[in-house]
Amino acid sequence: MKIAVLPGDGIGPEVTAQALKVLDVFVREGMPLEFEQGLIGGCAYDQTGHPLPEATFKLAKEADAILFGAEGGFQYETLPRGLRPGDALLTVRRELQLFANFRPVVAFPELVGASPLKASHIDGLDLVILRELTGDLYFGEPRGVHAENGVQVGINTMRYDEREIRRIAHVAFRTARTRRRRVCSVDKANVLETMELWRSILEEVGREYSDVTLEHLYIDAAAMALLRSPLHFDVIVTGNLFGDILSDEASMLTGSIGMLPSASMGEGTKGLYEPVHGCAPDIAGQDIANPLASILSAAMMLRMSFGESAAADRIERAVRRVLGSGYRTADIAEPGTKQIGTAQMGDLVFAAL
Amino acid sequence: MKIAVLPGDGIGPEVTAQALKVLDVFVREGMPLEFEQGLIGGCAYDQTGHPLPEATFKLAKEADAILFGAEGGFQYETLPRGLRPGDALLTVRRELQLFANFRPVVAFPELVGASPLKASHIDGLDLVILRELTGDLYFGEPRGVHAENGVQVGINTMRYDEREIRRIAHVAFRTARTRRRRVCSVDKANVLETMELWRSILEEVGREYSDVTLEHLYIDAAAMALLRSPLHFDVIVTGNLFGDILSDEASMLTGSIGMLPSASMGEGTKGLYEPVHGCAPDIAGQDIANPLASILSAAMMLRMSFGESAAADRIERAVRRVLGSGYRTADIAEPGTKQIGTAQMGDLVFAAL
Ligand SMILES: CC(C)[C@H](C(=O)O)[C@@H](O)C(=O)O
Ligand SMILES: CC(C)[C@H](C(=O)O)[C@@H](O)C(=O)O
Repeated sequence: MKIAVLPGDGIGPEVTAQALKVLDVFVREGMPLEFEQGLIGGCAYDQTGHPLPEATFKLAKEADAILFGAEGGFQYETLPRGLRPGDALLTVRRELQLFANFRPVVAFPELVGASPLKASHIDGLDLVILRELTGDLYFGEPRGVHAENGVQVGINTMRYDEREIRRIAHVAFRTARTRRRRVCSVDKANVLETMELWRSILEEVGREYSDVTLEHLYIDAAAMALLRSPLHFDVIVTGNLFGDILSDEASMLTGSIGMLPSASMGEGTKGLYEPVHGCAPDIAGQDIANPLASILSAAMMLRMSFGESAAADRIERAVRRVLGSGYRTADIAEPGTKQIGTAQMGDLVFAAL
Repeated sequence: MKIAVLPGDGIGPEVTAQALKVLDVFVREGMPLEFEQGLIGGCAYDQTGHPLPEATFKLAKEADAILFGAEGGFQYETLPRGLRPGDALLTVRRELQLFANFRPVVAFPELVGASPLKASHIDGLDLVILRELTGDLYFGEPRGVHAENGVQVGINTMRYDEREIRRIAHVAFRTARTRRRRVCSVDKANVLETMELWRSILEEVGREYSDVTLEHLYIDAAAMALLRSPLHFDVIVTGNLFGDILSDEASMLTGSIGMLPSASMGEGTKGLYEPVHGCAPDIAGQDIANPLASILSAAMMLRMSFGESAAADRIERAVRRVLGSGYRTADIAEPGTKQIGTAQMGDLVFAAL
């Protein structure tokens, strides 16, 4: 079980270190996990001139799973396209065909007070956003800025073919079967032909899963429904761009984006696991970031790449126990709780295991 | 002052009738408003075979302002492209070059309890979303579904040229000058070249308005920030697709989407005014829809197309007075308020004037 560890930028290294601390429990118990670290993102650019050095790409390609931290930083935003930290992540997703991005959005009862939404609105929230990750406007050609009669024109292409849609649709329905058997597909079929194709393929695939309920929402209506009736949703499946937007919106519902893990899967069991939060340069290196999203991403890795569900469950229970004892990092602290740092949170989860 | 009245489908006719009732106050006082009704949307399709009959288009084109109700209905969703109710609206926007869509999002203190967000989060909310309305993926070519080696492929084109971006940017900065002098531009410049052009033109235009603060957010971050810190925002300017999503998300913050008006403007004073809510076929014809969004849209019309700010203010004050007296339609009713129907709400605003 070879794991490529790519801590990346900002708070990435700190939080990833806590996930490794927790995984070490299982290594000690004899689980054959092997770790190899690689450079990615802004730090890789600084040291090698490229955000995704050849050695890192090889490592990611050959690993059974990838544990990713975060990438980015203001100083890299104006680099030429291809050299920005985000481009490294896009290349890994695309080249390894990690087309299915899972983002579970679960309201931890202990943290419901931190949400901008009323507690009554999100109590019991448990949905998963399934975002297609290797198609759409992100990769469509033609793209770029050119001049037409002296006027600058920007072009990008939304593009999906039926095979790309079909494979993510199957993942959605299979996922729903392990949950409450409801799929909501989000598109903009009233305006975009690409999304009409999306909708018709979802319908077609849905007929193979007659035990799963399928509904469709336009993206604008979905952005509203997530706020009006978040408890309505089970599995939400959508394209790359809409998924980017909707999953970030959804992650705010819980009030604890520092808690949310994600997995990006291909056809097999290989996956890339990362916290939903970003690199947060403003708090990097201060031992205040919340490592629980990274720790919970490691749990998803054990479950989805290595079939170690029992171990994953143990991590998740340990996290709940630590929260239950009143320990909080700054982002989720409330009056009456015990505020601790990044490393100490890692230690507590380790101890609870 | 010629007004094309296009009530459309679902609850459109009922709510528009209340707006006309209110405008009649000013006609009686001598304001030279002339009304002419036209068919649009599903009802137009039913009666003429087209959602935008030639006569309606001519009426809209020649009017000084358009008061629109709503369009749509499930039975029309599977019609061929070009014959759907939404297509009529898209054609009017595009052909009349109504490129600047204003959606004020204001939390009425009387209704703060109806929001899914905590009152402390939205108390004092007062932002405006300015959505570019005639470009982007909505109209970009090439578009459509075709076969490549027997595989169906859907394509749409995101497209903006610098002139389209520049003109909406100017509107954003000019609007900010009438408010709190802050513009937040929302794009996805880290991934899409079209949005890089968007950002650079916003920067360029921003230099002409040194008294206005300009910031940029990626659309995913904006979808979060709207929930985390909605009071941060003053003017949000964005493209057609992102504006569609973000403005619907924002409208939910207030908990009273039945209250929100909108205006779609071109270079001059001509505009199309419509409630943000849709046609709501499930409650159509039952005298329970909230007419206040339509009434407030009429107020925007008086202000923006006819320069009648005092009259617009009077309508807005009358609405506040009726709410202050405890009257509510079903969508915004709370324990202790007096629940009334559509027509009665229109009567009360009329009386309050
Ligand atoms: C960094 C960026 C390219 C990326 C995306 O847009 O996919 C990020 O927002 C995400 O959601 O992982
Ligand atoms: C009906 C539809 C075409 C339209 C849009 O997407 O622009 C609507 O959602 C809106 O926001 O006015």
